[in-house]
Amino acid sequence: MVVIGGGPVGENAAGRTAAAGLSTVVVEHELLGGECSYWACIPSKALLRPVEAVSATRDVDGAVGAQLDPTAVFARRDSFTHDWDDSSQADWIAGAGIELLRGHARLAGERVVEVAGADGTIRVTAGVAVVVATGSVAAEPPVAGLADTPHWGSRDATSASEVPAHLAILGGGVVGVEMAQVYLGLGSDVTVVNDDRLLARAEPFAGELLADSLRAQGATVVTGQKAQQADSVGERVGLTLSDGTRVEADRLLVATGRKPATDSLGLETVGLEPGQTLAVDDQGLVDGVAGSWLYAVGDVNGRAPLTHQGKHQARIVASVIVARANGDLPAGPPAWGAYSLAADHTAVPQVVFTEPQVAWVGRTSAEAEAAGLRTRVVELDIAVAGSSLFRDGYTGRAAFVVDEDRRVLVGVTFVGPGVAELLHSATVAVVGEVPVDRLWHAVPSFPTISEVWLRFLEAYGL
Amino acid sequence: MVVIGGGPVGENAAGRTAAAGLSTVVVEHELLGGECSYWACIPSKALLRPVEAVSATRDVDGAVGAQLDPTAVFARRDSFTHDWDDSSQADWIAGAGIELLRGHARLAGERVVEVAGADGTIRVTAGVAVVVATGSVAAEPPVAGLADTPHWGSRDATSASEVPAHLAILGGGVVGVEMAQVYLGLGSDVTVVNDDRLLARAEPFAGELLADSLRAQGATVVTGQKAQQADSVGERVGLTLSDGTRVEADRLLVATGRKPATDSLGLETVGLEPGQTLAVDDQGLVDGVAGSWLYAVGDVNGRAPLTHQGKHQARIVASVIVARANGDLPAGPPAWGAYSLAADHTAVPQVVFTEPQVAWVGRTSAEAEAAGLRTRVVELDIAVAGSSLFRDGYTGRAAFVVDEDRRVLVGVTFVGPGVAELLHSATVAVVGEVPVDRLWHAVPSFPTISEVWLRFLEAYGL
Repeated sequence: MVVIGGGPVGENAAGRTAAAGLSTVVVEHELLGGECSYWACIPSKALLRPVEAVSATRDVDGAVGAQLDPTAVFARRDSFTHDWDDSSQADWIAGAGIELLRGHARLAGERVVEVAGADGTIRVTAGVAVVVATGSVAAEPPVAGLADTPHWGSRDATSASEVPAHLAILGGGVVGVEMAQVYLGLGSDVTVVNDDRLLARAEPFAGELLADSLRAQGATVVTGQKAQQADSVGERVGLTLSDGTRVEADRLLVATGRKPATDSLGLETVGLEPGQTLAVDDQGLVDGVAGSWLYAVGDVNGRAPLTHQGKHQARIVASVIVARANGDLPAGPPAWGAYSLAADHTAVPQVVFTEPQVAWVGRTSAEAEAAGLRTRVVELDIAVAGSSLFRDGYTGRAAFVVDEDRRVLVGVTFVGPGVAELLHSATVAVVGEVPVDRLWHAVPSFPTISEVWLRFLEAYGL
Repeated sequence: MVVIGGGPVGENAAGRTAAAGLSTVVVEHELLGGECSYWACIPSKALLRPVEAVSATRDVDGAVGAQLDPTAVFARRDSFTHDWDDSSQADWIAGAGIELLRGHARLAGERVVEVAGADGTIRVTAGVAVVVATGSVAAEPPVAGLADTPHWGSRDATSASEVPAHLAILGGGVVGVEMAQVYLGLGSDVTVVNDDRLLARAEPFAGELLADSLRAQGATVVTGQKAQQADSVGERVGLTLSDGTRVEADRLLVATGRKPATDSLGLETVGLEPGQTLAVDDQGLVDGVAGSWLYAVGDVNGRAPLTHQGKHQARIVASVIVARANGDLPAGPPAWGAYSLAADHTAVPQVVFTEPQVAWVGRTSAEAEAAGLRTRVVELDIAVAGSSLFRDGYTGRAAFVVDEDRRVLVGVTFVGPGVAELLHSATVAVVGEVPVDRLWHAVPSFPTISEVWLRFLEAYGL
C-alpha cells in the first residue's frame, strides 16, 4: 500500500491501513503534515483566533483594554507550525509503523510508484493499492502583468511576519476573506477585489453580511470586478479593475483558487492526463483506471477541497482497501455504509473563521433547487437571548433548507460570531436525516445561540 | 385558558394557545419574564460573558491587556434585565392578544382561579384549561443559625453591584459555581462549600475539572463537607463545617437548591397538597386531578428545572390543550410525537457557563446504568487541533454513552472552554437516535472543537 502525499489526508489513509496490518509507505516531497499544517488551516486559524478573541471583548461591555500584539500573534502562528519543522509528524509516522519515503513520487504504470529522493530513485510496487493524496496548489489567474508583479500567494500570507500598511487581496474565497480578516485585525488597510460576491459558493447573504462586516472594520470590498492588469509602481503594486478603477497597495495577495497537484505525477503512464482532477467513484477508485488499485483522496479528486472532508475520504477509502485486500468488501455497499463516500455529495461542512464566522453544511438553497428537490427554505436572523448575550449588537443570519418530500434538512447555513461549533448540530441532522418533527424535541439549551434552531422550527410551523 | 405564572414558560404556553385562537389569560404577581429574565439565566450570563471574554484573551497569545471593569459589567447586567422593568414583556403580552392579570393566583376548585390584585380579587373560570407555571423558589438548607445570619440568595448574587472582598458560597450546583465564576472573575476571594462534588448530577469528571479550574483561578473549593452552623462576626459571616473547619467571609451566598412554588396556590381545593411538586404525565396533565383541565409546566412539575426544558414543555402542552379543545387530540400519542413530553425523560440538555463550560444532554453513564441499559462509555480528553487553537493550553474532557443494543447515543457530556454551542450536536444525535455508524459520515469541520466527535468514533472502533 503506497500513499503519495503526507498531508493530513494521506496520513489518515496510511494510519488506518497500517493499523489494519497492511504494509504501508507514505511518500512526501515537502513537509509531512502538508499544506494544512504549515500554510493553510493551522497557521490561518492561529492568526485568526487572537483577532477574534480581541474583537469579542470589544463587543462585550465590561471587558476593556484588549489589544493585539502582532509580534506575539506571529509567534503564536510559528508555534502552531512548529517553525515549519515536521519532525513531530515524522515521529508519528514512525510510531504508527508506516514507512516514510522523502522525495517526489510519480506513477510508472500499474501499481508502480517511482520515488526520486535525495539518494536516487527507487521503485515501489504496491501489492494492494496506490492512494494519491497530493492535494492542490494555488492557481494563478490570467491577469496581464501578474507574473512580473511581486505578489503573495496564500503561503506567503499565512507565513508572513509583517503587517503591510496596505494589503490588496485578489480573490474573495475562503483564503481571501480569512486573510483580509487577519490583516485588518492586525492593522493593515485592506482592499478585497473579487469577480463575484464574497464566498460565492455559500448562500448569498453570507457574502453580503461578511462584506458589510469587513467594511465596518475598515476594509474596502470590491465585488463583481475582475483584475485586468497588475503592475509595480516603485515599491508598491497596482491593479487595474474591469471598470477602470485602480487599486494600489504595499502588498498584493493573489488567492483566486487552487488546482489539483497532478502535473508531474506520471498520470500518462496509467492512461490519464497530467494536470487533470482525479475523479473517483464512491469507493474512491479513480475513474478510467482498471484493476481497482488506484485511489484518490482529498483535494486532488476535486470533490470537496477541505481538510476534514479529505480526511473523511481517507478513512473510508482505507476501509475499502483493507476490506478489498481481505476479500470481504461487500458488493453494492449502501450509500451511508462504512465503504461509501456518500457524504461528499450531500453533507460537506465548512467553516470560515472570519468576523462573522460563516458555516454551512449540505446544500445551499440554490444547490437544492438545482438538484430538483422540492424544498422550503427558512431564512432568519440569529436573534435569540444567547446571541445577544454573546456579543452586544450581535448580527447573524441562518438558512435552513428542508426537503419537503422527506421533511428532512438537506442544508443549513449559519453566519454570525460564535457559530463554528454550532455547525455540527446541522451536520448531524443532515447526515442523520432526522425529520424536522423529531427535531422539535431536540431542545436547545438556554441561553445559547443554538436557540436559532427553535426559531427555525417555529417559523417552519411547528 | 388561564396560565398562572408569566415567566418564559408561562409566556410560551400562553403565546401558543393565543395564537391558536384560544382566549388566554396570564396571571403574574411579580415581573413578567420571571426568575430567568431578572434573577437567573439572563443576569447570570450577562455577568459571566465579560468574564469569559477576558479569560479567553488570557489564553490566546497575541491578545493582550484585557481587563474587566466591574462597574461596566454590572451595567451590562442591568441593561439585560431592563433595570428590572417588565414593560417590554407586557407589551409583548398585549401584542400577542393575551390578557394580563397582575396579582396572586390561587386555585378555587375545578377550573376556577382567583386572582388577588391591587383592585381586589376576581374569579376566572377556565373553559379549557389551567396551566400552572409558577416555577420554583430558593430552598434554604437546615443550617443552624442561618436564619439569623445575613446572607445572599441567588437573586441577591445575580442583582448585586458590589464585589465582596471575600465571598463564601454554600452550594456547588449550577448557581453556586456560576456565581463563583462571576465573582472570581471580578476579583473576589471565593470559597465554595458543597456537601458533594461540584455539579453532582453531571459526570464525575465535570465537577472535578471545574473544581481544578476554580482553584487554579484562586478559589477555595471544599467538597464533601456540610455547613453545621452559620453566624455573624461583626460585619463578617462565618460557617462552621462538618469537619470543624471554619470559613469566614464578607458575604455569604446560599445556593443549595430550589423547591416548587406551590405553597399558596390553593392546591388543597383540587385535592392536592400545598407545597408539593405537581407531577404530570407525558401530556402535562397533573397527576391525581380528574377532568383533564389542570396542567403544570416548568420547574413546578419537577421534571427538569431548566428554562429551555420548561419552554419546551409549554410548547408541547399548548399543542395538547389546543388539540384537546378542538377534539382532535389523538389517543395514545407516540413517544416522540407532537403531543408528548418524551424528551423530559431521556434528552434534557444543560449548559453551565463556567470556566470550563460544562454541557451535557441525556443520560450520564451512571443514569444509563441505573436505567438498565447495556452501555459502553467512551471518555476522552478534548484534545484536537480546534481546541488547541481556541485556547492555548486547552483542557477539556468528554463522555459519550452508547446504548449498545441500539448503537445510538443516550448521553453526551462536554467539559471545556467553548463547548456550549457544541452541545446541540449531541442533543440532535440523542433525540434523533442517529446510529453511531451513521455519525461516522457526519464530518466535523477542521479545525473546530467538534472534531472531538471524530475522536469518539475512532475510540469506539469505527
